[in-house]
Amino acid sequence: MSIQAAVEGLHARYAHALDDDRLEEWPDFFTENATYRIATAENEARGLPLPVLSCDSRAMMRDRIQSLRHANIYEPQRYRHMVSSVLIKEIDKTRVASVANFLVIRIMQDGGTTLFASGKYLDRILLAPEPKYEERVVVCDSRRFDTLLAIPL
Amino acid sequence: MSIQAAVEGLHARYAHALDDDRLEEWPDFFTENATYRIATAENEARGLPLPVLSCDSRAMMRDRIQSLRHANIYEPQRYRHMVSSVLIKEIDKTRVASVANFLVIRIMQDGGTTLFASGKYLDRILLAPEPKYEERVVVCDSRRFDTLLAIPL
Amino acid sequence: MSIQAAVEGLHARYAHALDDDRLEEWPDFFTENATYRIATAENEARGLPLPVLSCDSRAMMRDRIQSLRHANIYEPQRYRHMVSSVLIKEIDKTRVASVANFLVIRIMQDGGTTLFASGKYLDRILLAPEPKYEERVVVCDSRRFDTLLAIPL
Repeated sequence: MSIQAAVEGLHARYAHALDDDRLEEWPDFFTENATYRIATAENEARGLPLPVLSCDSRAMMRDRIQSLRHANIYEPQRYRHMVSSVLIKEIDKTRVASVANFLVIRIMQDGGTTLFASGKYLDRILLAPEPKYEERVVVCDSRRFDTLLAIPL
Repeated sequence: MSIQAAVEGLHARYAHALDDDRLEEWPDFFTENATYRIATAENEARGLPLPVLSCDSRAMMRDRIQSLRHANIYEPQRYRHMVSSVLIKEIDKTRVASVANFLVIRIMQDGGTTLFASGKYLDRILLAPEPKYEERVVVCDSRRFDTLLAIPL
Repeated sequence: MSIQAAVEGLHARYAHALDDDRLEEWPDFFTENATYRIATAENEARGLPLPVLSCDSRAMMRDRIQSLRHANIYEPQRYRHMVSSVLIKEIDKTRVASVANFLVIRIMQDGGTTLFASGKYLDRILLAPEPKYEERVVVCDSRRFDTLLAIPL
C-alpha cells in the first residue's frame, strides 16, 4: 500500500468514527502525546494562538469525550464528513505532513441539515506501526461558530 | 490496480452516470439479483424495515427507470454527487464490503441549487469480471425527503 | 505512482493553490498554450459557445490574475474546493482525459459561507515532465452566477 493510500485510509476511518458517533474511538487515532486543535483561518493567518478547542494529549481527548457524554448539554446532532484533495509530504522516514480539505454537514434531531463547517486539516502523521496523528490542526474557514462546538471535527 | 482503486472507480462511474442523466445505465452497475435500497439513518438505527425505495433485482431497477422516463411527473432536476472516505473490507476472495460518505447537490431547472441529501453508501461488491454492486444500501442522514424522490441516489 | 494518483495529485494541488489564495501560481498548472473555460451545463448541452470566462493561453491567465489583484473591485472572498469521483481515460501515451466532480464553498469576509458552485471538470492533461492541464473546462451546474465571478474555479 502506498503512503498516500495509508494516509487517505486514516482520514477515512477518522471521519467514519465521528460520523457513526463512535466518539470513544476518537483519541485512538492519535499518538499518546498528540496535539489536536481547532482554529479559524483568520486567527491562523494572524498568528493568533486562540484555538476554538485544544487538546495536548490523548488523555485530554478522552476527558473531553467523557464530558461530552455525561454533560449532554448540547442538542443531539450528527455530522457527515467529506474529505478531499489530500496532499502529503515526507518529513522523515517515519513521518509525513498531510493537508486535506474538509466539509462537515450537521444533521439535527428534527432532520434539519446544514453546511456546518469547511476548512483544511493540517496533519503530522506517524506512519508505523499503524498511521496515527501526532498533530492535527483543523483550520476552519469561517469564524462563525456555534457557542457550543461540541463534537470534534 | 488495487482493490481500493477498483472500488473507487466503480463509485465514480456510478456517480457520473446519474449526474449525466444516463439513468438507463444505472442497473448495469449491479449484478442481476442485486438489491438496492434507500433508507434513513433513523430507521436503520431502529432496525425498521421501511426503505424509502427498494429494488430486488436489476429487472426492477430497469422498470423504475422506465417509469421515471415515461411518467415524467417530477420537476426536471439534476444531481451532483460527491463521494468521499471510501473504506473497504475483504469478505472473501471475490467480494468486498465498502462504506463511503456521499453528498448530493440538486439543481432545479431554474438554476436553484440545494444540498439535497447526505449519508453513507453501504455496499457489497462482486469484484470480477468487473466490479458490480451485489447490494447497495443508501443510508440518508435526514428523514426529510421530498415526497417525489425520483432519481436513484 | 499510478496515472490515477498523478492526476488526483494535480487536481489537489490546483485546489489548494486557489483555496490558499496563491492565485499567481494558478497559470503554472497549465501548459503554455492551454485553454481554460468556465461554462454552464445548459450552454454546453446546447452547444452554445458562450463561456462565462475563457483564457486561451497561460499569458492570458497571468493577465487575469494581475487584473484581479490590482482592480480589487470584488468583495474579499475565499473558496474551498472539494473534488471527487475522478475518472481518467488514456488519450495517447502522453495524455489523459479526466472528468471529476467539484463543489466550491465561498467564504465572505464576515464569515458567511455558501455553496457557491458545483459541476464537473473536463480536462485534457499532459503527463510529462509533470502533469499539467492542456485544457480545463469547468462546467457549472447552475447558470446562476454572481455578476462578478472573480476568482478562477
